[in-house]
Amino acid sequence: MTLVLSPSEIALRAQAACLLEVAAAKPGNVSRFRDFGDTSFEDFLLSAVAIGAALGAAGATGVGETVLTAVRDTRRWVSANTNLGIVLLLAPLARAAADGGAPLRGRLSRVLAGLTVADARAVYAAIRLAAPGGLGHADAQDVRGEPTVTLREAMGLAAGRDTIAREYVTDYEVTFGLAVPALRRARGSGFGWSAATLESYLSVLAEVPDTFIARKRGQEAARAVSDRAREVLAAGEPRSPERARAVDAFDSELREDANRLNPGTTADLVAAALFVVLGEER
Amino acid sequence: MTLVLSPSEIALRAQAACLLEVAAAKPGNVSRFRDFGDTSFEDFLLSAVAIGAALGAAGATGVGETVLTAVRDTRRWVSANTNLGIVLLLAPLARAAADGGAPLRGRLSRVLAGLTVADARAVYAAIRLAAPGGLGHADAQDVRGEPTVTLREAMGLAAGRDTIAREYVTDYEVTFGLAVPALRRARGSGFGWSAATLESYLSVLAEVPDTFIARKRGQEAARAVSDRAREVLAAGEPRSPERARAVDAFDSELREDANRLNPGTTADLVAAALFVVLGEER
Repeated sequence: MTLVLSPSEIALRAQAACLLEVAAAKPGNVSRFRDFGDTSFEDFLLSAVAIGAALGAAGATGVGETVLTAVRDTRRWVSANTNLGIVLLLAPLARAAADGGAPLRGRLSRVLAGLTVADARAVYAAIRLAAPGGLGHADAQDVRGEPTVTLREAMGLAAGRDTIAREYVTDYEVTFGLAVPALRRARGSGFGWSAATLESYLSVLAEVPDTFIARKRGQEAARAVSDRAREVLAAGEPRSPERARAVDAFDSELREDANRLNPGTTADLVAAALFVVLGEER
Repeated sequence: MTLVLSPSEIALRAQAACLLEVAAAKPGNVSRFRDFGDTSFEDFLLSAVAIGAALGAAGATGVGETVLTAVRDTRRWVSANTNLGIVLLLAPLARAAADGGAPLRGRLSRVLAGLTVADARAVYAAIRLAAPGGLGHADAQDVRGEPTVTLREAMGLAAGRDTIAREYVTDYEVTFGLAVPALRRARGSGFGWSAATLESYLSVLAEVPDTFIARKRGQEAARAVSDRAREVLAAGEPRSPERARAVDAFDSELREDANRLNPGTTADLVAAALFVVLGEER
């Protein structure tokens, strides 16, 4: 993926990444087979297409404006927050895909290094608009105020409690180090998008406790979910009956408690990986 | 919907119409809960986003080129025909939405009246590329040759065996006369997109024998399916347990015979109606 992409190709890839992520049957999360609390699967479909124009324009408008426009465009169609985390991860990737030159991660690194205070201001506005809840209070640079640092610096302050924020200061370590390789491996083995997405999701969850769960239920709960993801991966080869049973059992456990154990951050990271790998396959 | 729409708004609406149509649980057809023969639900998601750029550009490029580009763009992502019928219906609507002036159906009427031989040539190329199978042989203006009549005249020759072709010569009589009113009624009663789509689908099927079924199984089979759709509608109010049971039973009957009784044309007409009604709601 070293080619420069047109806005409509970037838009399409961002939309497709969101759709494939949300459709895949992932333990504890929304999927084609599972509505989710107060948001339906159809809300996620509409959210996925709604962000196309904003992400397609990322090369011209920059990261902060891309995030804010995408969240605003989503709100025209869907009343709940469905995609803030995904948009935060996709905006720098879309901007990088629109640039020419080095491999994608190198371009991404330059995009992240160039983030400004204005980017932070636009992202703070987007976060207030999306009102995700449960972001936690910050001692410094709280999203209820106006930031005085760059977006990357602001993300650095939140890196300990949010893997998405951490991606901004590690040049997407989890995305490129775990989610993308797992997705590539599965696609290389002939897996369909849904099965490949599940492999990537379990691989990330097994290694990185989900910070969405940690914020709602504590670090201990998040670590226990990751322990279970490792057991599921060890239960059998992908597509074996043993693995399928383990995935089903894991899904039931996570849903027991009114969906409060949903690995939402992990799903966002897999959507970012889908954006990358979709670009490599065509 | 008397406003002139931007390309990105038209793209988004066309994509959303396809996604909401395919996601809805419709007896005998693909849905979020049902893969379909050799095509997965995920193939339909990718197809829905793939057509965005082509449909968004309909105001500049015209109907024939829009159809051909949309089919080509779909083929980059999905190897089977997933959306030829929908694209044939959406292209004139997208072109009309990009024009200013009269209400949408009036604008559509002008678009259809202005179709050319070049439009026919491009659509024939699209049909050969999509290779839907079962289009039937025509004595005149067969799609294997090059047309010498306008697209509207060519559609007129096929109107007896294909409701989509008939829409081109009746200014979308089924779409605006049956599918749109049913969808508006359901939305007005507070139905979600999926439930409203089902109501529109059953209302069209009850009145208009599905020509996709007729081509594969004969007129008698298509009429019998419409008889059953009327019985399902009469079984109880929407969202009542009686109606839900009748819908489930209908679905099982249609799937019994290797999906050869799938009302594919009806689904396409509902997608066109979704494009219209999505425009009225925002």
